[in-house]
Amino acid sequence: METVSENKCFGGTQGVYKHASKACACDMTFGLFLPEEAQFGEVPVLWYLSGLTCTHENAMTKAGAQAWAAEQGIALVFPDTSPRGEGVANDEAYDLGQGAGFYVNATQDPWAPHFQMWDYIAEELPALLGENFALDMDRQSITGHSMGGHGALTLAMGLPGRFRSVSAFAPIANPTQSDWGKKQLSAYLGDSGWDKHDATLLMQEVGFDGPVLIDQGGADQFLDLLKPEALSGAMAARRQEGTFRMQKGYDHSYFFISTFMEDHVAFHAEALHS
Amino acid sequence: METVSENKCFGGTQGVYKHASKACACDMTFGLFLPEEAQFGEVPVLWYLSGLTCTHENAMTKAGAQAWAAEQGIALVFPDTSPRGEGVANDEAYDLGQGAGFYVNATQDPWAPHFQMWDYIAEELPALLGENFALDMDRQSITGHSMGGHGALTLAMGLPGRFRSVSAFAPIANPTQSDWGKKQLSAYLGDSGWDKHDATLLMQEVGFDGPVLIDQGGADQFLDLLKPEALSGAMAARRQEGTFRMQKGYDHSYFFISTFMEDHVAFHAEALHS
Repeated sequence: METVSENKCFGGTQGVYKHASKACACDMTFGLFLPEEAQFGEVPVLWYLSGLTCTHENAMTKAGAQAWAAEQGIALVFPDTSPRGEGVANDEAYDLGQGAGFYVNATQDPWAPHFQMWDYIAEELPALLGENFALDMDRQSITGHSMGGHGALTLAMGLPGRFRSVSAFAPIANPTQSDWGKKQLSAYLGDSGWDKHDATLLMQEVGFDGPVLIDQGGADQFLDLLKPEALSGAMAARRQEGTFRMQKGYDHSYFFISTFMEDHVAFHAEALHS
Repeated sequence: METVSENKCFGGTQGVYKHASKACACDMTFGLFLPEEAQFGEVPVLWYLSGLTCTHENAMTKAGAQAWAAEQGIALVFPDTSPRGEGVANDEAYDLGQGAGFYVNATQDPWAPHFQMWDYIAEELPALLGENFALDMDRQSITGHSMGGHGALTLAMGLPGRFRSVSAFAPIANPTQSDWGKKQLSAYLGDSGWDKHDATLLMQEVGFDGPVLIDQGGADQFLDLLKPEALSGAMAARRQEGTFRMQKGYDHSYFFISTFMEDHVAFHAEALHS
């Protein structure tokens, strides 16, 4: 593992690290914020999964999460959204290939050799983090934005017991029924294995054993693709512990995310510190 | 004036606007955050001047200032750092020409026709803002980073009575004695008129009629170019009302700025709301 950069930030350290990923068969880069408390012992971990076109860097610089994570004594992990580099398959569209891994293990060519993002986030990166940093991997929570909200919800429900709480900002909530989903699931998975990568279907089938928080901007330009109503309905039908908030006037941008980040970090802190 | 974008943010609006600048003889773009209170009446204004290579966008997306400005009911202005576009002189170096206006009125060719950033920030943009937005231009304060910290300090001391408070993050504090300064002042101004563009010399000569707050990272990679010791010494020698803080371990990045932004906004709010 190589240190790309480390900057002091809110009393802790915002680091960027690169490592050879076995799951993705390429070098992968991630951001990790460690609060000051990590100098004295292990701290709990909040994952932030990013959306289409993002790298590890977008949320790390724009979401304003470090202020609140420092206040709560929580680490933040910012993984990349896909494998990258020469020799890694790609597509000209912004919503397929590099920057658009969709948090699945691809079974189809040309994606299968590198696009194993589920395994990367669920297994390889947590193991690497636990070995190299002062993180308490028994206390993890997860959040994300858009495609990353989809990733957070599907990982949380797909890995029971792993995460204490899950939240999402404007998640792709029902990808099996959306053009943000059908295209990518077809390309990466072919005809099968879609259901476990749809937060609404998972909410209907299994739900989440802990609290859920969803924020959705009411003026989001992608509402038709995100389908928040499907997830909200499924949460209510299941009697899922959780909160779904429609935030009037907010769009899909980091200005929306940063506005409600304090709430999300506090929400996860309550689960992580209890 | 043209609206480039408006995003709801912390209950207010983060806008980006473009207008034909008379001072700079080109189109200029700026960011403006209006807190929710601006819907009901005029709000005070905090200027944020950015550093070398930045546009209006960097601080607007990375400094995390909107959270605190919203809390305090203060507007934030994010001007660009220079004129731009085809027909505007430039230099291959990152620290001269476009992105490096240094907040002076250039008198030398090829810069003089467009590089009139002092007039733009001191006169043209405030007039435009006062006409078009719910801003109380009798309550203004100013801050900035690096070259923008230089701009904030020189404008504050050069325009007595204009600003109620001034702060800076890692300002270029003594440009007449630094390679961040001598090069640009020579290019833009020739041999004369340097003194009113040096915060340390201004602090020695006139000082500031109000409180001053300076934050400087102790691990800043540009300490030799910034010369904080000159400004700190001048502040103490003058008995200037103010605070100079050397922040151990912090560098020159936005991770440093965002860490202390809450303090700066609160500092200015006290002056603006009193």
